Amino acid sequence: MAANPLAIVYLQYIDTLNERRFDELGRHVHDVLTYNGQSWTLDEYQALLRSDVDTIPDLRYEVRSLVADEVQVAARLWFSCTPNGLFQGIETSGRTVQFAEHVFYEFDDLKIRHVSSLIDRDAVRRQVGRAD
Amino acid sequence: MAANPLAIVYLQYIDTLNERRFDELGRHVHDVLTYNGQSWTLDEYQALLRSDVDTIPDLRYEVRSLVADEVQVAARLWFSCTPNGLFQGIETSGRTVQFAEHVFYEFDDLKIRHVSSLIDRDAVRRQVGRAD
Repeated sequence: MAANPLAIVYLQYIDTLNERRFDELGRHVHDVLTYNGQSWTLDEYQALLRSDVDTIPDLRYEVRSLVADEVQVAARLWFSCTPNGLFQGIETSGRTVQFAEHVFYEFDDLKIRHVSSLIDRDAVRRQVGRAD
Repeated sequence: MAANPLAIVYLQYIDTLNERRFDELGRHVHDVLTYNGQSWTLDEYQALLRSDVDTIPDLRYEVRSLVADEVQVAARLWFSCTPNGLFQGIETSGRTVQFAEHVFYEFDDLKIRHVSSLIDRDAVRRQVGRAD
């Protein structure tokens, strides 16, 4: 997958997140983007990512699958982490949980313009005994 | 996206599903596959897809995003459909619901070998008034 320039750029973006270099996010993300159809500024996106790390100090983005073409990246991310209590509206009571995120990105000039993400909240609910 | 052979094969697979040609599924799917980490036979996979259509007569797979390389496809699928009652464990009471599926496929000899799918069940729950 290293042959695709966008795959390389994406892995650099993931490194930026894992190394908590949020000030450098503007290298990889446009000043205005959409996240699940809603318009966000880069500042708001930075604030979201910082707040994720505040809530989940051991948060680490692990790329399990990566598919890229000239303008799009799709990634299957894996997390094994320990939220401080409430995570995505689910009370996790300090437990370590494992779950996937399937996320699609549209790039423009090698920077992220659109993000469409699905997080496996039902897996988290099952692990903390809060499934239907 | 038509430039990539696997993208073309994938769109043929989606046509097969939308046209209910389940007997031809073996053209696109191996005799044994994994679905979200579990081992399935082609017969079991066919039975699942047939049962989806029994439960949701107006089921239609709409490809919103498609990313493909030499061996992988990632698709963001969109559904607007009317399940007969229970859908994915959620009582939908005959309502029409809209939701996304983000799904990753690994191919081998141009046939599907592994499927990893996330369905936005929370969107369905919100639409039928069964969210947390």
